Amino acid sequence: MKRAMLLALVTVFIVACNPKKDSKTTVAKTLSNQEKVDSTNIKHFFNSALTEGKSYEWLRDLTQNIGGRLSGSPEAQKAVEWGEALMKEVGLDSVWLQPVMVPHWVRGEKEKAYYTVNGKKQDVPICALGFSIATPKSGITAEVIEVKSLKEASELGEKAKGKIVFFNGAFDNTLINTFRAYGGCVGQRVRGAPVVGPLGAVGVIVRSMTNSIDDYPHTGTMSYGEIPREQYIPAAAISSRAAENLSADLKKHPNLKFYFKQSCQTLPDAPSFNVVGEIKGSETPENIIVVGGHLDSWDLGEGAHDDGTGVVQSLEVLYLFKKNKVRPKNTIRVVFFMNEENGTRGAKEYARLAKLNSENHIGGLESDAGGHTPRGFSIDANPKNTKLLQSWKKLLAPYGLHDLNKGGSGADISPLKAETVTLVGYRPDSQRYFDYHHTSTDTFDKVNKRELELGSASMASIIYLMDKYLYRNTPVKL
Amino acid sequence: MKRAMLLALVTVFIVACNPKKDSKTTVAKTLSNQEKVDSTNIKHFFNSALTEGKSYEWLRDLTQNIGGRLSGSPEAQKAVEWGEALMKEVGLDSVWLQPVMVPHWVRGEKEKAYYTVNGKKQDVPICALGFSIATPKSGITAEVIEVKSLKEASELGEKAKGKIVFFNGAFDNTLINTFRAYGGCVGQRVRGAPVVGPLGAVGVIVRSMTNSIDDYPHTGTMSYGEIPREQYIPAAAISSRAAENLSADLKKHPNLKFYFKQSCQTLPDAPSFNVVGEIKGSETPENIIVVGGHLDSWDLGEGAHDDGTGVVQSLEVLYLFKKNKVRPKNTIRVVFFMNEENGTRGAKEYARLAKLNSENHIGGLESDAGGHTPRGFSIDANPKNTKLLQSWKKLLAPYGLHDLNKGGSGADISPLKAETVTLVGYRPDSQRYFDYHHTSTDTFDKVNKRELELGSASMASIIYLMDKYLYRNTPVKL
Repeated sequence: MKRAMLLALVTVFIVACNPKKDSKTTVAKTLSNQEKVDSTNIKHFFNSALTEGKSYEWLRDLTQNIGGRLSGSPEAQKAVEWGEALMKEVGLDSVWLQPVMVPHWVRGEKEKAYYTVNGKKQDVPICALGFSIATPKSGITAEVIEVKSLKEASELGEKAKGKIVFFNGAFDNTLINTFRAYGGCVGQRVRGAPVVGPLGAVGVIVRSMTNSIDDYPHTGTMSYGEIPREQYIPAAAISSRAAENLSADLKKHPNLKFYFKQSCQTLPDAPSFNVVGEIKGSETPENIIVVGGHLDSWDLGEGAHDDGTGVVQSLEVLYLFKKNKVRPKNTIRVVFFMNEENGTRGAKEYARLAKLNSENHIGGLESDAGGHTPRGFSIDANPKNTKLLQSWKKLLAPYGLHDLNKGGSGADISPLKAETVTLVGYRPDSQRYFDYHHTSTDTFDKVNKRELELGSASMASIIYLMDKYLYRNTPVKL
Repeated sequence: MKRAMLLALVTVFIVACNPKKDSKTTVAKTLSNQEKVDSTNIKHFFNSALTEGKSYEWLRDLTQNIGGRLSGSPEAQKAVEWGEALMKEVGLDSVWLQPVMVPHWVRGEKEKAYYTVNGKKQDVPICALGFSIATPKSGITAEVIEVKSLKEASELGEKAKGKIVFFNGAFDNTLINTFRAYGGCVGQRVRGAPVVGPLGAVGVIVRSMTNSIDDYPHTGTMSYGEIPREQYIPAAAISSRAAENLSADLKKHPNLKFYFKQSCQTLPDAPSFNVVGEIKGSETPENIIVVGGHLDSWDLGEGAHDDGTGVVQSLEVLYLFKKNKVRPKNTIRVVFFMNEENGTRGAKEYARLAKLNSENHIGGLESDAGGHTPRGFSIDANPKNTKLLQSWKKLLAPYGLHDLNKGGSGADISPLKAETVTLVGYRPDSQRYFDYHHTSTDTFDKVNKRELELGSASMASIIYLMDKYLYRNTPVKL
């Protein structure tokens, strides 16, 4: 029996240890000599990131010692100082701050909401939306009218009058890429209030932007657009479970009264900074490839996946170049952008200065889709360069980077968009992202060290390839 | 300013909502009419799983109401009853139990370990390995000798005498597929004791099998192989952080004494069951395609990723066939295998009965690599069928299923291996798996609902394709 057991164990063992190899080995056979050099350099980036990466500890520091860092807040200022010091510590060729004035919205006291059905008080997890005005100090109490879309809201007419409009359009969970589901819903959050304020509604509550049914309200920016100030009404998000419950209760009790209270306000613009650092190019230093994420975050969590991961990964790209003694041909610049969440002022200022100083950006990469396991990149470039980037698939696929589709890059680098600029968005797996997005659960413990490091190495790899091959392809004259 | 702000917001919005579409749309253009039918059916599986899937609630029930379910335990028996009732509830054509005798190892009291350096006691998180014997009641105290591999251990000779041998070979974190890193280390755990017991060592402690540095001891099976009973020595795993610390302390204090105590024992074999259910094939019901995971788990956690997810996903495959009114041509059978973790007795009994009853298995699929986001399948089949399965890539890639490489299937279905049987292993993302594997953190909360459901739908999709196309390809006569 012991022999049988040992044999059995060896079998289990062999199967458990699964002969499925990293497909790299197979792929390598079909590589040209040049590609073999690239493949080796890419392997070095991954080896370094996975064994001597710094991003995870940087992220721990940013998220746990500073925490949420909304534009204009003392935490955002601390994050700027942290970023500048860190870039210097990494030993970049130069590090500087770009001053920029940012919106300064503050949440105020913790928001409160409830309604009563059958004599039972239902507390509702709620949070104000960024840029929303406060309710009166005593709060707002009103009947609720439920809609599932902006279109439905715009057709409410008289029915909106005196009501709290409840936007309850849910994520389409059949969409595999959760960003598409977000895209289908987030208009309710951003533009709900200016649609129903002019109809005489007294408030807006929006179902949180998430795939899951949970108890966390997810904040995010909104805008009153161009409606007159007197038509501004307070806007807030409620948790997805509360939205489900409220919707069910409204069917039985259409006249129930909903109460909410928030004391947020928009203060005068505040001074802040983009944090910028670079490694000078060895051949064409006047050509710049920028890599970045955003340093600001919402205030409810620690801004871990949004976008602490993008920040530390972007800096780790340059760290990996240095660590592996890869001197870029072009200048590689890292930017910690300020104010992506509510204004993108940092992005605009960066682009304005780039233009003003006639800087020649040839490429950009942004990481602002979370720190989950790598899946690929989306490419926003002219057809020639799109094809060039897609030709790198065999070098990237061994690391799980299969998605090299056309698509947007990111809010912070997209102002650099031009025919001659190749913009790329890092695309990690999206399944868990909206569990944490803009809510109190976006904390350090949700980030997996290996997934984060694989992302840094993925980004370093595409920056390496862009640096090596892109500048020959640009500027493209059409 | 408001206009500028609105424009800015719309820009942010458009970028955030990222026009990167599910690549399905693009892929669809190149599909044949037959493939379009398949593509539509696959889409239905995904839509169902993501909107009316049951696996997540099933998993909650199994992990939180039953919990860890080591072979021979009362929890394992409860899991059998749970599985049988659930298969009946799903409405399979038939459901039955396959009796099988299983090893019955029990952990006993919580294990204890420490050592003292500079007068300071260092507590060590430790757990006995499956099938290990107990220490004497008073525990074992001995000096420690550290090795990094089985080979190094086998060369210890006299130096092992009277010592606790400390296997401290760490995962190679540069391997992208973490199962390969596991494969490179797990021999220390499985075969450490029979290598050093005969050398006169008094105990074995093994660094936990994980990529991360944490405080959890990871258990798992070991074997004394064929060494005589009197050479059996107790074997345990210590947490990876404790291993790092102990290694550092040994450099300064090579004669430190390590203490550990465990009271585990192997009882007589116990009766248990595989749980089996099936949907009868409409055309060739004598052909069987089996899909399964293992119902038993280690005792330290809740057996969520290992392998509660595989169990619920396997049943959800049949649920998705029924829900979408897809009647399979061949019989699709689901098996909840018993005793994968320490003996694979259920797998062997299933294969024995299949042979005894001249059942014609044409294919098998196993999910035993965790419930993380889908990546693909590994294929263990003859060249013709391997090629057939790989030709489905364009149907599967839109769901992130890019990996269709040759490789092992799984411990429970591999006893069915034959020239005419196509075996497939479900391969989700592996980055987080060994954070939880065989330890107390393998709990329900580590499983993401969408990732789990995407896995069920991925599995249903390949079973659908195997059912439709495979039977024409088999039996292959060489």
